[in-house]
Amino acid sequence: MSEPTFDDASTPLEHGGDLGVARKLFPGAPEPFVDLSTGINPLAYPMPALSPDLFARLPEPAAVELLAAIAAKTYGAPSATNVVVASGTQSLLSHVFALVPNGRAFVLGPTYAEHARVARLVGHQVLETDAIAALRGSRLAVVVNPNNPDGSLQQREALLSLADDQRINNGLLVIDEAFMDVGPTGMTLAPDVAHGPIVVLRSFGKFFGLAGLRLGFALAAPAIAERLRSALGPWAVSGPAIAVGAQALADQDWIDTTRVRLAVAAMRLDALLNEARLQVIGGTPLFRCVQTSAAALVFFRLGQAGILVRRFSDRPDLLRFGLPGDEPAWERLRAALLS
Amino acid sequence: MSEPTFDDASTPLEHGGDLGVARKLFPGAPEPFVDLSTGINPLAYPMPALSPDLFARLPEPAAVELLAAIAAKTYGAPSATNVVVASGTQSLLSHVFALVPNGRAFVLGPTYAEHARVARLVGHQVLETDAIAALRGSRLAVVVNPNNPDGSLQQREALLSLADDQRINNGLLVIDEAFMDVGPTGMTLAPDVAHGPIVVLRSFGKFFGLAGLRLGFALAAPAIAERLRSALGPWAVSGPAIAVGAQALADQDWIDTTRVRLAVAAMRLDALLNEARLQVIGGTPLFRCVQTSAAALVFFRLGQAGILVRRFSDRPDLLRFGLPGDEPAWERLRAALLS
Repeated sequence: MSEPTFDDASTPLEHGGDLGVARKLFPGAPEPFVDLSTGINPLAYPMPALSPDLFARLPEPAAVELLAAIAAKTYGAPSATNVVVASGTQSLLSHVFALVPNGRAFVLGPTYAEHARVARLVGHQVLETDAIAALRGSRLAVVVNPNNPDGSLQQREALLSLADDQRINNGLLVIDEAFMDVGPTGMTLAPDVAHGPIVVLRSFGKFFGLAGLRLGFALAAPAIAERLRSALGPWAVSGPAIAVGAQALADQDWIDTTRVRLAVAAMRLDALLNEARLQVIGGTPLFRCVQTSAAALVFFRLGQAGILVRRFSDRPDLLRFGLPGDEPAWERLRAALLS
Repeated sequence: MSEPTFDDASTPLEHGGDLGVARKLFPGAPEPFVDLSTGINPLAYPMPALSPDLFARLPEPAAVELLAAIAAKTYGAPSATNVVVASGTQSLLSHVFALVPNGRAFVLGPTYAEHARVARLVGHQVLETDAIAALRGSRLAVVVNPNNPDGSLQQREALLSLADDQRINNGLLVIDEAFMDVGPTGMTLAPDVAHGPIVVLRSFGKFFGLAGLRLGFALAAPAIAERLRSALGPWAVSGPAIAVGAQALADQDWIDTTRVRLAVAAMRLDALLNEARLQVIGGTPLFRCVQTSAAALVFFRLGQAGILVRRFSDRPDLLRFGLPGDEPAWERLRAALLS
């Protein structure tokens, strides 16, 4: 097998977490790959034993309602009627963006690329802007808060004022809070969804480290939530996801402890990146965003060392580092960065 | 707690499998409930051990592609490019029905109610007809084959001729083959999807008895399949569903044995229903459809005995019986029917 060239490796990966492609890019890299290409917590919530019935039977509406009630409490939404349970937030996007007639959609960016892609697919005319003021007057406004990958935070007041504007315009404000579990407390818009026209998206798999389970939520006014439930139809979520989600979201001790552990790990990662003379320009405790003119080279060298980080086709100067999950992974990252 | 009245119990359940509602209708019924209200195989595929990574990591595209290749082979579709992997066929309906511009949609019925509901939600003008000839000239034609609940089968030739018509009309033919795993061999339209405009839906959870896993497929021409994949977006299916699906769909011995076991169980159920003077008017080996003017009474008596069967708001003379999963369940059904 021939050595990978720098050119091969400069093809951007569309999303994080694809070790299949990483192995093709870096066929000689030592295994196991250390996957730092996602913002998923490597210290996963301990999986409980799963009853065979969770796999065998159709999930029951009562179990979904219980999960919705628990999620409302944990996320701070007014009640279970504000919660839509889905198989990951990705599966909600097309239904959320179709809540308003097609029109001008603004995405605050640069950010996670799926919002613009799906809004376009649904039929909106999509523009990206880096100024929150530019979102005013749009049919659909999308904000990722905290933002991925740079971690920038929008203040509640600015977002609530934007929501007021959207209410007058018959528009919609979508806040993707995929990483708010590790954000500063008190910044979620979950408590404010009841009066619309706000949809808050919450991801389960990232903070709880169970991305393969596929579980996510939309928080919205009851009438909007009901439209989304109707669009998803029955049995939108697997039995295991419902059971694990209900247990994990109610486990406030684990949540509190994990927020601290992740913050400590992120500080450790910052120190290491700093030692390697890589400038951290932002992030959240689940990932750090590095800006460097040597991004392509760093990606390549880490890849050859069996470490996958995230790069971005539209921002070739950025790299995103997730958290190593154990000491061997930390050691390999340190060795690769400082070699 | 007061005894349930016949009136309470005559509120139809929207879908099968909801034991929470059944327990409210029949609070004094002996537990455990015997759930015969679905068409799900009670002899489930044995769950393999699941690696923690399947829950923790984002599912990888390569794993989805492998599952698609296995599903293509087992279902008889030309290749993996014809296969869309989804979190149950229900999650596909809105995306499939949106493949064509809104127009007149015909559903061959009476049948599974979600097709008409979702087609209407997407914006089609939906009509139900019991004549396959009436589907010609529609924008969207939907056929459940074999049909649920009566098991009626449409011949391949009739469906292919309808597909030809739809091709000329720029229409779409959707065949829901949710129960084709137990249908006569050679009747699936899976081999015919390549030239469009056909979408075949295949359910994993019913035949394999793993409905809680949420896994289903659309089979279609490559261009249609690609549009559906794009609409679903990345990570549409959970890690456990991908792994179990790939193993189970490749297990031809289990599939062959199970087809026979289910056919034998269905014959046993027919004999018992016949003994109880209930007329079986059709079905598939996963469920039997009974027509009787005493349907409401039979539903009520079985419910009081802790046995849930499926009834239909629009067909109060029909009951659908799934297969009991073990000897105690058979015994309880026999006792309740013949008492």
